[in-house]
Amino acid sequence: MIGQDIHNLARRLWKINRSLTGEGVRETLSMLSQELPSLETKSYDSGSQVFDWTIPDEWEVKEAYIIDPLGNKICDFSVNNLHLVGYSTPINQKIPLTELQKHLYSLPEQPGAIPYITSYYKERWGFCISHNEREDLIDGDYHVVIDSRHFKGVLNYGELLIKGQNEKEIFISTYICHPSMANNELSGPTVVTYLAKWLLEQENLKYSYRIIFIPETIGSISYLSQHYKLLKGKVYAGFNVSCVGDNRAYSYLPSRAGDTISDDIAKHVLKWKDPNFISYTWNDRGSDERQYCAPGIDLPIATMMRTKYGEYPEYHTSLDDLETVVTPDGLQGGYDSLKLALEAIEMNCKPKVKVLCEPQLGKRGLYPTLSTKGADTQVRLMMNFISYCDGEHTLLDIADKVKSPIWGLYELYEKLLEQGLIESNTV
Amino acid sequence: MIGQDIHNLARRLWKINRSLTGEGVRETLSMLSQELPSLETKSYDSGSQVFDWTIPDEWEVKEAYIIDPLGNKICDFSVNNLHLVGYSTPINQKIPLTELQKHLYSLPEQPGAIPYITSYYKERWGFCISHNEREDLIDGDYHVVIDSRHFKGVLNYGELLIKGQNEKEIFISTYICHPSMANNELSGPTVVTYLAKWLLEQENLKYSYRIIFIPETIGSISYLSQHYKLLKGKVYAGFNVSCVGDNRAYSYLPSRAGDTISDDIAKHVLKWKDPNFISYTWNDRGSDERQYCAPGIDLPIATMMRTKYGEYPEYHTSLDDLETVVTPDGLQGGYDSLKLALEAIEMNCKPKVKVLCEPQLGKRGLYPTLSTKGADTQVRLMMNFISYCDGEHTLLDIADKVKSPIWGLYELYEKLLEQGLIESNTV
Amino acid sequence: MIGQDIHNLARRLWKINRSLTGEGVRETLSMLSQELPSLETKSYDSGSQVFDWTIPDEWEVKEAYIIDPLGNKICDFSVNNLHLVGYSTPINQKIPLTELQKHLYSLPEQPGAIPYITSYYKERWGFCISHNEREDLIDGDYHVVIDSRHFKGVLNYGELLIKGQNEKEIFISTYICHPSMANNELSGPTVVTYLAKWLLEQENLKYSYRIIFIPETIGSISYLSQHYKLLKGKVYAGFNVSCVGDNRAYSYLPSRAGDTISDDIAKHVLKWKDPNFISYTWNDRGSDERQYCAPGIDLPIATMMRTKYGEYPEYHTSLDDLETVVTPDGLQGGYDSLKLALEAIEMNCKPKVKVLCEPQLGKRGLYPTLSTKGADTQVRLMMNFISYCDGEHTLLDIADKVKSPIWGLYELYEKLLEQGLIESNTV
Repeated sequence: MIGQDIHNLARRLWKINRSLTGEGVRETLSMLSQELPSLETKSYDSGSQVFDWTIPDEWEVKEAYIIDPLGNKICDFSVNNLHLVGYSTPINQKIPLTELQKHLYSLPEQPGAIPYITSYYKERWGFCISHNEREDLIDGDYHVVIDSRHFKGVLNYGELLIKGQNEKEIFISTYICHPSMANNELSGPTVVTYLAKWLLEQENLKYSYRIIFIPETIGSISYLSQHYKLLKGKVYAGFNVSCVGDNRAYSYLPSRAGDTISDDIAKHVLKWKDPNFISYTWNDRGSDERQYCAPGIDLPIATMMRTKYGEYPEYHTSLDDLETVVTPDGLQGGYDSLKLALEAIEMNCKPKVKVLCEPQLGKRGLYPTLSTKGADTQVRLMMNFISYCDGEHTLLDIADKVKSPIWGLYELYEKLLEQGLIESNTV
Repeated sequence: MIGQDIHNLARRLWKINRSLTGEGVRETLSMLSQELPSLETKSYDSGSQVFDWTIPDEWEVKEAYIIDPLGNKICDFSVNNLHLVGYSTPINQKIPLTELQKHLYSLPEQPGAIPYITSYYKERWGFCISHNEREDLIDGDYHVVIDSRHFKGVLNYGELLIKGQNEKEIFISTYICHPSMANNELSGPTVVTYLAKWLLEQENLKYSYRIIFIPETIGSISYLSQHYKLLKGKVYAGFNVSCVGDNRAYSYLPSRAGDTISDDIAKHVLKWKDPNFISYTWNDRGSDERQYCAPGIDLPIATMMRTKYGEYPEYHTSLDDLETVVTPDGLQGGYDSLKLALEAIEMNCKPKVKVLCEPQLGKRGLYPTLSTKGADTQVRLMMNFISYCDGEHTLLDIADKVKSPIWGLYELYEKLLEQGLIESNTV
Repeated sequence: MIGQDIHNLARRLWKINRSLTGEGVRETLSMLSQELPSLETKSYDSGSQVFDWTIPDEWEVKEAYIIDPLGNKICDFSVNNLHLVGYSTPINQKIPLTELQKHLYSLPEQPGAIPYITSYYKERWGFCISHNEREDLIDGDYHVVIDSRHFKGVLNYGELLIKGQNEKEIFISTYICHPSMANNELSGPTVVTYLAKWLLEQENLKYSYRIIFIPETIGSISYLSQHYKLLKGKVYAGFNVSCVGDNRAYSYLPSRAGDTISDDIAKHVLKWKDPNFISYTWNDRGSDERQYCAPGIDLPIATMMRTKYGEYPEYHTSLDDLETVVTPDGLQGGYDSLKLALEAIEMNCKPKVKVLCEPQLGKRGLYPTLSTKGADTQVRLMMNFISYCDGEHTLLDIADKVKSPIWGLYELYEKLLEQGLIESNTV
């Protein structure tokens, strides 16, 4: 099962300390390149102006921990990289508990969880700790050590271009900036990696594919600042991939326009995967669709997820793990949905029947010789299908009209094409 | 009651052995011509290529029956023409029961019914028999006699043109190819005959009417192959008439486009005839709308029925009769609905009020002198009506806006026209 | 509370005998001029042809009453001006009860109420009386006195123009032709008076305002006959103001088109004032929208009401009073809704964000320093707001998209405008 392979890849990426910038991002990209040799690692310089933003300095952490009054090492970054507030400034100092408390973050309602906190744009240091552990802290002096460094460096991202017959591109974006979390991080780049592997195996792709692995927000803004004119001309459809690894729900978040081909495809796929899939609105957004669909950018990017960020209790905590939250089955479902969507985009066309009135199926052997109930259903489906092949309805429209998943029509479509009964116009 | 007259005509047509071709079709058309002297019988030659199809040979049956081992004549075509599988090839042979069984058709779940079976495009012989009778068959040899003949002949149909003031045509089609069945055959041509009689009595028809009586599928395909360009230019609206004779339901099946004037009119009429009328979809189609609305043909043909083919237990069996299924009341309802639809098409226009602001109805005697509750309703209806006479809304639109059947507005419309308060623009 | 001020003004106007024409209309306009010095009283001559209508003669009443057989004065016009049928012809005669009965109007189902009856266009005299009082009338001769006069005079109305920066006008109309009734009369002109006072206090109004106080139907028809070409070119939005004084419901009646900006604004305001507001249809209309939206006039005039005319038991009777029906709270609600609507029209625009991708709010101090739950909601609202600032969505569209009343966005809009993050395009 491919879900198991994806899960294995996620395990290998688990311990790396990803952030907006730094060695962890490069290490992640390097590991993904082993799966995708054509993946290129690229960069933008710290301090570059990207639209309304400035790319922050690179951040490096050698070590970070606290020694408690009894000499125990706690909040050790090398044990769990969530312990350190992202982009923490350096410190090496003994401070009393009361002072330390101002720099600790915990979740009283999830006392066993280490929260995930960052402070990219405001200088600050801090540690994240489970509330249980925090409540056990005793009075006294704590030795706080953060050996971190901010410096003019680069912001990295990975890019992979797969050429199809058509200049039009399908754009896939996922992010690589969160440390050890599973659904809201690793499910994205690992599922996208396996989608890319599958795409690379296909012959005669109709569309070209542009796949990027970037840090969220600043990464997509940086990328857009360089490429948005190009993308506006080329991108036909696309998806932002996030939270595709747990096995509890399927969900959809629209593009800003809400009616792009990506939206239509996403809703179609999910309604056949799970009639109870959750449909969010643009107001519920929270990932890089915020940039891809911003006014003036307006790319046709929709989002297909399993359980959405912010909508599950383990979100942004150490509980978002590869054991209880993200599973091989969950990843398989996320992968399958996106693969079905990409296939649908590839297969979609405007079929047109080449004869006037209904064709005589009997003389072509397209009528079943033995009339069984299942066969009737197949003939009815074929006749319905043909009746909509007017060169106006797309395969996707037809699938909805005949109440079939689009993938339930591929074989039929190929058979009719082969028989010369239909011709296929591009959408 | 006209429903009784229609029922009587159906009785006269009952015993004729109709099929795709042959004497039965001509006999049927001849009987209809007694009601409609201007109805012309026309033909296409066997073997002609019509779009993707070839017109089959003509079929003639002299006699068909089986002599059982005890010398009894069973499955006698002269007793019930449903006994013989349509288009059966000839045979005159003694065969054992086991061999005969392969050529018998019955319905275990409707053991008293003789099913209706045809094999137009594959050479085959067979008999239809009630399941009860079949179960009583004893072992032994059966003498099977089918004195039938297939030969280069013609496929016949009837056509009636009624000229109106306008070149634009209303197209009405019904079929005459099933043997002794009532709702799914005779209700169609008999109701259409009486609609044609009514049209012929009208003076100053706005539209022209093209009415055809044809064998289903191959008949409509043949007709279209000769006339589709003409029809595409001329047909403004139309109906395929089938299953308009039982008294159990009203139902509607859309054109492929679903939004033609024929669809709007059909839905409007039926919702006022029966708020619970059944609305089918294009996927549920099964009669000649398959051809009239096929891609590239695209005529605005909708279907108004009583109980739809395939949706009642007696369908395509000997139980679909003129006693328990099709009744004078049922036929009256089918006739009335279609007549209301045709009247609505004739009456529909874009009325436009000729004064600005509300007209003063009082000085025209259009206000009731005694203000009773009913009168108030009438005045309110008149004011609502006038308020929509903007030259944009059609009479049909207005009927929906003021929540009245369109026929509830005709008198009002005529009165206002007479008063010079409105003028009428064509749709 | 401004509702109390409006109620006080209504009390002052209560006893005046308003009708289509006459001293009562002038007296009413004169009293309103004390509040609105720039309000001009204008007139049309009796006998003038206005579209399909003729302006009726002016009507003057000196006194009207009946002396019963016992010498008691009943139905005294000076006690309650509803006692006299509007536009009654003069009479001074003794008649028996049986004869008098033909000229009496009462409501058996509301036996304590004096009904409101007029006969503008048919010569007639009559008295309105409570059904209780009518049942107590004894046999005998009654002396009927109506000292009234019809003569070539004028039909008066009031007009107030408030200039804004823009030639485009907001049109507000209310009527002043009913005698002593509260919701279905005085609530309209009194609320409009206070809206006008508020408008006159505003600086930099974007639109100009045309406010008229007219007799219903014949008044609006007369006004339109003179101004409709001007209005068709200038009026951007507007409201007919009627029944805005009780405290039982909010309701909306659409323009004929149903989708004008006035309709959108009215529905938006009311849904946030009262999620259970009642939405009527054009068929339910009954005031001057009948003229303003008539075919060929087609002004964008919608109606926002408290309880609609005809929909409350006291309607058109002496029970429609300033004690139990119209209250300061009720008037306040009517005033507030219309004021919110006018503000919304003034504020509405097409904001456009000036940066590509999301702006960095942090560096502008637009992110809260302390992240509390309420602050999160505010940031989310701001981000949602900005995400729709594409120069296509209006502020009203955006309010609906982000599920906020439009007035919940004004502060945010001003802040972003001030920060230079958005620019504002006219709608």
